[in-house]
Amino acid sequence: MTKSHSECAAGPDELAAAIKDYRQLVDAELDRFLQAADTPPAQIHRAMRYSVFSGGKRLRPVLVLMSCEMCGGDTALAMPAACAMEMIHTYSLIHDDLPAMDNDDFRRGNPTCHKAFGEATAILAGDALLTLAFELLAKETPNCKTLVAEIAGAAGTAGMIGGQVADIVSEGLPPDADLVRFIHERKTAALIRQSVRTGAITAGAAPHDLAALTNYGEKIGLAYQIADDILDIEGSTQQLGKTAGKDVESGKQTYPAAFGLEASHRKAAELAKEAKEYLAPFGDKARNLRALADFIVARES
Amino acid sequence: MTKSHSECAAGPDELAAAIKDYRQLVDAELDRFLQAADTPPAQIHRAMRYSVFSGGKRLRPVLVLMSCEMCGGDTALAMPAACAMEMIHTYSLIHDDLPAMDNDDFRRGNPTCHKAFGEATAILAGDALLTLAFELLAKETPNCKTLVAEIAGAAGTAGMIGGQVADIVSEGLPPDADLVRFIHERKTAALIRQSVRTGAITAGAAPHDLAALTNYGEKIGLAYQIADDILDIEGSTQQLGKTAGKDVESGKQTYPAAFGLEASHRKAAELAKEAKEYLAPFGDKARNLRALADFIVARES
Repeated sequence: MTKSHSECAAGPDELAAAIKDYRQLVDAELDRFLQAADTPPAQIHRAMRYSVFSGGKRLRPVLVLMSCEMCGGDTALAMPAACAMEMIHTYSLIHDDLPAMDNDDFRRGNPTCHKAFGEATAILAGDALLTLAFELLAKETPNCKTLVAEIAGAAGTAGMIGGQVADIVSEGLPPDADLVRFIHERKTAALIRQSVRTGAITAGAAPHDLAALTNYGEKIGLAYQIADDILDIEGSTQQLGKTAGKDVESGKQTYPAAFGLEASHRKAAELAKEAKEYLAPFGDKARNLRALADFIVARES
Repeated sequence: MTKSHSECAAGPDELAAAIKDYRQLVDAELDRFLQAADTPPAQIHRAMRYSVFSGGKRLRPVLVLMSCEMCGGDTALAMPAACAMEMIHTYSLIHDDLPAMDNDDFRRGNPTCHKAFGEATAILAGDALLTLAFELLAKETPNCKTLVAEIAGAAGTAGMIGGQVADIVSEGLPPDADLVRFIHERKTAALIRQSVRTGAITAGAAPHDLAALTNYGEKIGLAYQIADDILDIEGSTQQLGKTAGKDVESGKQTYPAAFGLEASHRKAAELAKEAKEYLAPFGDKARNLRALADFIVARES
């Protein structure tokens, strides 16, 4: 007898343990792939390491590895791509935090890169992490051509950068439902969806499995950003490790601004549910990815 | 009877005509590879096009194509990589010009990207050009794995970014010969050498030809930066299209500061001569590359 989907999700402790294990592996590989902090010019390598090792959740590399494992792939082969996704994510945070962009002084409870190293080094550290991500994909992954093309597409103006531009130019405009969707799909969902795809591609997933996982990634990516919008309102600065309430203050296009808080909570839960439906064909193998969809909505930082 | 090397160089008019032809081809392909200016979010695509089409010399793509052609390759196959090199060069200029970096208001006679579009868009336009360069290499070139790995290496902290960091952190220090070499080899020579290699690799050049061309690229790259340092002192703002005399004002580590103007002229000429010596095995096929080495030293902007 087939279990219902909800029964096939890992419990919170099981998920936490799996994430912790993956994080440790990812951190060890990031340490290996990043140049030593004293390699000249040391300033840039220190700044890159500072931002990469400032306590991120490692959601994107964890998604790469979980997706790869679920598709029967060798997670060791997916590790360089997992690290590349984290480098791209970190570069985007460093640049987003700059005075000319969101002007944030704190990130994950620590001074942002430009606060710790100055603006010039922060800009270059972001550039360097993006560049290193592609070097890593080319040198260390088996599917260089597909992965570089897809990841660059997801990180470029049709994806993450496009979302960030739209986010900035629409600050202070009246909340607009279409605009919020445009921004969320690109700024956050594009890279999260691509993380899931990257793991599946490295595992050599069949086209219908890749398609299902792409839909799963899209849904949890949107859920993640809505949860982020909600946390900016309901969370404390201490809890978030970054300044709370900044979205409202800056007049950002957020889901709560466009639809209200209650509808935002409903929408995030609905997206997590839809995401899990796409995992049905994978049965018990999708225990972790199923639990992750719920975790993304329920997280407190 | 073999002609002497000096006889085998293209004349100034022949070189100018060759560069003009290549530039037109490159500009047409850049136009094709860049998203249309009205693709949403339009702001970023307008900024990318503004900086790419602001009258650059296209030295790096011209080097890719000339090197490819000389090695008997199909220049059409090298065109995407040629455009990728120009995008990476343009991204580096946009970021270098930012207020937190060199703080330049003019580039190639026009307002710099951040002056025309604001700082946030300029940072993102740079990021987007770097990202698009790798997407292009992955999607459109036959040697994705080698080229992405090499180009990312040349553009990263062991190359261009490393040189830029060293350039910035050493502003105002006493002129230092070793430091000037460290900066020049990375900030400028790494990407110019890589352009020559990229063309040769696309053409499937033999290892000894690739090695000779790598040395040629290194020499003209260093000569180019010394000529740049000299122009900053001897050129006018109008002639350069950017503010003259900025290096001295900012206390930059330049060749003239470390060795004097006369020694700088001598060194640039010597590097061009050494560069041409590496072209000896290629005979008359190297006419254009030979002339280019002289052009780089003699250029007036």
